[in-house]
Amino acid sequence: MMRKKKTRGQLIVLSGPSGVGKSTVISELLSERENLHFSVSFTTRAPRVGEADGVNYNFVSRGEFERMIENQELLEYAQYVGNYYGTSLKVIQDHLAAGTDVLLDIEVQGAAKVRAKCPGAVLIFIIPPSFEELSRRLHGRATDDEDVIAGRLKKAKEEYNEIPNYDYLVVNDKVSSAAAEIIAILTAEDCRTKNRMCLVDDV
Amino acid sequence: MMRKKKTRGQLIVLSGPSGVGKSTVISELLSERENLHFSVSFTTRAPRVGEADGVNYNFVSRGEFERMIENQELLEYAQYVGNYYGTSLKVIQDHLAAGTDVLLDIEVQGAAKVRAKCPGAVLIFIIPPSFEELSRRLHGRATDDEDVIAGRLKKAKEEYNEIPNYDYLVVNDKVSSAAAEIIAILTAEDCRTKNRMCLVDDV
Repeated sequence: MMRKKKTRGQLIVLSGPSGVGKSTVISELLSERENLHFSVSFTTRAPRVGEADGVNYNFVSRGEFERMIENQELLEYAQYVGNYYGTSLKVIQDHLAAGTDVLLDIEVQGAAKVRAKCPGAVLIFIIPPSFEELSRRLHGRATDDEDVIAGRLKKAKEEYNEIPNYDYLVVNDKVSSAAAEIIAILTAEDCRTKNRMCLVDDV
Repeated sequence: MMRKKKTRGQLIVLSGPSGVGKSTVISELLSERENLHFSVSFTTRAPRVGEADGVNYNFVSRGEFERMIENQELLEYAQYVGNYYGTSLKVIQDHLAAGTDVLLDIEVQGAAKVRAKCPGAVLIFIIPPSFEELSRRLHGRATDDEDVIAGRLKKAKEEYNEIPNYDYLVVNDKVSSAAAEIIAILTAEDCRTKNRMCLVDDV
């Protein structure tokens, strides 16, 4: 569907437990939706097998990350399972000003900070069909040690407590359905009266 | 897309000036979206050419309408260009309780009453691409006298003042696009966290 030009883009925050399949859903979103920019986060954690610098994350050293914190170059940052994760402010601002929607993949601490700083942001939480399924997916991935998986599951339980703070909840039972629901959410947000008053004739 | 079973349907109010093409958009919606019931309004106005009783409206006498008001059978009612228009309460309640979304086509006075009585209702306003286009469509329809058209255009200007009270604004430049946007709005509303907490495991 042809979309109307917006004066300003929409900031969208996507959260969900490790293993829920966020990266796959995001790939699908980016291929299906035009005018959507994925903001690649910065992290100090080591790349997993198949992850590329500048694609999944911008992988930086702890020293470099702490320099960015000091220079206030980050919209938000948080520590998660012993590593830093953060979002560059300038890249986001440029895209939003150009009318492009910006998608952030951040965990619940970071999302809370974005919500406080940008009240207009749309927050979406992705859950697996069940918690058992999440455990199966994390074990099936086989890139992490058992104690890392246990840490992720414990963290997931804590993250579930934050779900009521999110605007939307999407179940990733099937990637295409989850992506289609998120696209519907983005379309609906475009249709919000406050974002469209510029289209109303002055009668 | 297969939709998840809801415990309760969503009440959706559609408003827009006479001539904007609401009936055509609604027909498209009903053919594209399952689990959506269109609540046929009651009115005392005369049927237009091509309109059928029980389909476009339930056409009733002034006496019958006033009996319904007295018996509190209406969720809302209003007078518009000299005629009564109203919505039956019971039919709506039954569908919502069965998990079916209910679509109301009502003008701005009635919509304000529904908003006050049902704070969870989703309000959508449809506008034409321009006010000149609305005038063209009303004249092109050729079912009304010139003074009726003038009355509708004057009323449309008043209705435009109520747009900020609506949640969503859809431009009917093309019926299929307008219907697709409304379907996206309904999908997004289904995804609202408050409507989906039942899907979250108790972890």
